[in-house]
Amino acid sequence: MKKKAVVLLSGGLDSATVLAIAKSQGFDIYAISFRYGQRHKCELQAAEKVANCIGVKKHLIMNVDLNKIGGSALTDDIDVPKGREKNQMSNTIPITYVPARNTIFLSLALAWAEVLGARDIFIGANVVDYSGYPDCRPEFISAFEIMANLGTKAGVEGDKFTIHAPLSQLTKAQIIGKGIELGVDYSLTLSCYDPTEDGKACGNCDSCLLRKKGFAEAGIPDPTRYK
Amino acid sequence: MKKKAVVLLSGGLDSATVLAIAKSQGFDIYAISFRYGQRHKCELQAAEKVANCIGVKKHLIMNVDLNKIGGSALTDDIDVPKGREKNQMSNTIPITYVPARNTIFLSLALAWAEVLGARDIFIGANVVDYSGYPDCRPEFISAFEIMANLGTKAGVEGDKFTIHAPLSQLTKAQIIGKGIELGVDYSLTLSCYDPTEDGKACGNCDSCLLRKKGFAEAGIPDPTRYK
Repeated sequence: MKKKAVVLLSGGLDSATVLAIAKSQGFDIYAISFRYGQRHKCELQAAEKVANCIGVKKHLIMNVDLNKIGGSALTDDIDVPKGREKNQMSNTIPITYVPARNTIFLSLALAWAEVLGARDIFIGANVVDYSGYPDCRPEFISAFEIMANLGTKAGVEGDKFTIHAPLSQLTKAQIIGKGIELGVDYSLTLSCYDPTEDGKACGNCDSCLLRKKGFAEAGIPDPTRYK
Repeated sequence: MKKKAVVLLSGGLDSATVLAIAKSQGFDIYAISFRYGQRHKCELQAAEKVANCIGVKKHLIMNVDLNKIGGSALTDDIDVPKGREKNQMSNTIPITYVPARNTIFLSLALAWAEVLGARDIFIGANVVDYSGYPDCRPEFISAFEIMANLGTKAGVEGDKFTIHAPLSQLTKAQIIGKGIELGVDYSLTLSCYDPTEDGKACGNCDSCLLRKKGFAEAGIPDPTRYK
């Protein structure tokens, strides 16, 4: 029987690539996505398309009402920044930071992994092209892994969890290159923070700009549907 | 202005005591409870009564659909153990363990704390009378605190979070003694894993048995409504 892995799947470019990487390593994939009051809800449709296309054992969509907590341009009525240069993006933690989001998502993935008997959890965290989010950094991922192994039945019984962040040190262009090699269809993915209702990307938020630049640098035609 | 604290409030004896402790330390209290598919849903009514009685700035009830994940007698259709002796309880991690529950609840509390500007989070974790749950141990709480300060904007900017578990080393009798001193009305609280629909305790699950023993040892009449 194949080993199981839980993969955090947002429907964006990075997590689609991570899903393909985990699959290429021989895991049976259990993808988990979150309906958390995000303004870019149609990323969940993208997540479903990606999960179906790459092939997963199960795709679980959990509801977490982070909009009750607020504090981010992604869940609150705050404008998403547009047209920023790279140096503007990386100087400070952006307003699109969602408080403790990866901590919350990894915690829920951890719970599911424990129940499934999966001990490998994959996340598309990345620090090279966009180091603004504290909960994407390797030191956070390591600290989460330690905590996870102290706070779960499996962990304390010695059947330890590993948190994999295989994109951590890759540029967006390298991520795209890797995904193309593994057959990822990026036309299914949606990275935009502020898409139209039918899932077209704005082309101008931080996430769109980094994605565009990534395709350009990788020398691969950008398949994104822009509005 | 008073400092703010986020307090995890289940509606049970321990978390009610923690709420009173945080309040006695001069914090403005933001209580957080979770509707997570638990079979003992009426603990949320107890939580509301406790919050109103002790006095909080806000009481947030979040929905987390842990029943989609399952794996516990508290969220699944698995019988809650009854009539066990103390030595039977502490030998193994019990079936009432909910995978990664405190990790998930603390993560959501962390997100709310960050948005509120609270840097103190209180949890009623305790290891003396019931050491079966890995995510109640001090080493887990410390690891969570480290992770929290690496994974949040506030944490990395040096405005650090502290996770307080003031009951950690107290017996149930000592917890009750402390609460009585602070004026906690334990008749409002509900600790039972398997209560009746109108919130009466079964009197025979692990949680009820420990609670009964605590009142007996503290020499305080047990105000619990048993069925």
